Amino acid sequence: MVPPVKTLEQVVSYKQRIQKAAPNTTFLMTLYLTADLTPEYIRSLKGTNVVKGIKWYPSGVTTNSSQGVDPTQYEKFFPVFEAMQEVGIYLNLHGELGCTCNGTHEDVDILNAEEKFLPILKAIHTAFQKLKIVLEHTTSKAAVDIINEINLADNPTEDPNATVYVASSITAHHLFLTLDDWAGNPFNFCKPVAKRVLDRTAVVSAAVSGKPWFFFGSDSAPHPVVNKMKRDHPPAGLYTQSHALSYLAEIFENAGKLNLLKNFVSTYGQQFYGIKDEDLISKKHVVLTKKDIVVPRLIGTGDDGVVPFKAGETLKWSIEWRD
Amino acid sequence: MVPPVKTLEQVVSYKQRIQKAAPNTTFLMTLYLTADLTPEYIRSLKGTNVVKGIKWYPSGVTTNSSQGVDPTQYEKFFPVFEAMQEVGIYLNLHGELGCTCNGTHEDVDILNAEEKFLPILKAIHTAFQKLKIVLEHTTSKAAVDIINEINLADNPTEDPNATVYVASSITAHHLFLTLDDWAGNPFNFCKPVAKRVLDRTAVVSAAVSGKPWFFFGSDSAPHPVVNKMKRDHPPAGLYTQSHALSYLAEIFENAGKLNLLKNFVSTYGQQFYGIKDEDLISKKHVVLTKKDIVVPRLIGTGDDGVVPFKAGETLKWSIEWRD
Repeated sequence: MVPPVKTLEQVVSYKQRIQKAAPNTTFLMTLYLTADLTPEYIRSLKGTNVVKGIKWYPSGVTTNSSQGVDPTQYEKFFPVFEAMQEVGIYLNLHGELGCTCNGTHEDVDILNAEEKFLPILKAIHTAFQKLKIVLEHTTSKAAVDIINEINLADNPTEDPNATVYVASSITAHHLFLTLDDWAGNPFNFCKPVAKRVLDRTAVVSAAVSGKPWFFFGSDSAPHPVVNKMKRDHPPAGLYTQSHALSYLAEIFENAGKLNLLKNFVSTYGQQFYGIKDEDLISKKHVVLTKKDIVVPRLIGTGDDGVVPFKAGETLKWSIEWRD
Repeated sequence: MVPPVKTLEQVVSYKQRIQKAAPNTTFLMTLYLTADLTPEYIRSLKGTNVVKGIKWYPSGVTTNSSQGVDPTQYEKFFPVFEAMQEVGIYLNLHGELGCTCNGTHEDVDILNAEEKFLPILKAIHTAFQKLKIVLEHTTSKAAVDIINEINLADNPTEDPNATVYVASSITAHHLFLTLDDWAGNPFNFCKPVAKRVLDRTAVVSAAVSGKPWFFFGSDSAPHPVVNKMKRDHPPAGLYTQSHALSYLAEIFENAGKLNLLKNFVSTYGQQFYGIKDEDLISKKHVVLTKKDIVVPRLIGTGDDGVVPFKAGETLKWSIEWRD
């Protein structure tokens, strides 16, 4: 079992490790929401400026989530959410009901697990209206609708400078995939799973909408090919990091909204998390050029190599880093 | 491309080939329904006693179905169905709408493709009430409901000796699997895909119901492991032939209906197809014993080996052939 990141010391040491590997990346760190986290501990984090968010995994739903939250018991965490709201720590939701929670959710499967989670999102926002919440990697029309509904209720005049409390991140792969794509195919299988065509349409509309509560979150997971090819249930997750902007540019171009791509990828997320430009380690910027690029069949070599999303396909937009 | 079996000569030669490989099996042969089949040709088969049925594959839905029926154009085949009804040839349906038919079915995906096909089944039965039709490998509550509905309408007094015109076969694997099982897992992926828990419940109820219009059809497909492990879309199909009765016995035992297992496996299908005991090549029978048996991880060796359903798992019922 891979041990979860639960204490401040673990966060600091993990951040140092990954910062060394990617010195130009500005990392925002999260703790894992488990029964060990107390409101007192959350309050002790005030001013340390290390922990940005706390991640809710429903128990047993995705890779390494066995110590997560039992969604039938989530009100137990209300004192923790109270403290998070006070200290300004974000709640990052993997918004799915688990199918394995004591058999209480017989009618939950991987296709409706996100939709069935949404009442919990609404209940938490109602109870903690100033708690910043992100519904991560949104995949369904139902989720898009509720995020819009909450934001329009919180900000009925659609004031562009109003604070967003409930946002939703969207991955690159959920803009392309539907359930037919992961049927029997481990390389297109992630949690939450891609849904039906009408859901994909809603998620694409949200991404290109220019609404500041929808922004990019890659949720890129570099599972080694040898794990993906196991005969039993493969690990959930897609690798999109290497070509994320190229995937996104195609979607925004098709929608005639290339002008909104930067907001989706950078501006809205930065705004929501309150990150100023001067806080960013790298001052480089990216230039997208309309030039074909072929996604490799494998990144790395042998069993440890990773099969990227759209492996072997030709994408229309190449990226270049500039100072 | 694997060429389909379309002519009488091809059927005879194919039957000879497989009969040699399995000399004790009584094969019922089917032609592939394509635009090449004419009503005249069907009528010329009268009395040849070779072709039992004609198989409808919707174009592009499953393995080797590229020359199949475009479900938006199915009424073109009505003269063929008329001739089949006359001659006594059965219609074997792979009952799914295709998602690839000229983009006319944007709202069809692998999860609702069977349910969306059902109006076609109903329309064909309404037009040709004495045509024998089998909805093969039924997977959904919607299909179970319509098959019951048709049979109760045709035979409102539930006379056990009434002729069944519309039947449904059920596989072993669809009694176990739901969509969570084939998510990213090529070895549990078949077409039609296993559906939701409520669908599986309906299919199990149908199988153990003792109604003569539900009977076993294995739809077992021995795809070599090397094909299943391809990185692109894997072929649809599960291999269940080797342990079919053991899988089924568990389901019937759990339902307290072991006494109905033989009807489901043998009697009802034989009745529907009008096969007398004396027409069967083998006179052997099977005895099921409650004795653990482990399903091999691989049947055969190397790349050509086949991963059977429930590979590596222990089943509770063993079978034995007796004279």
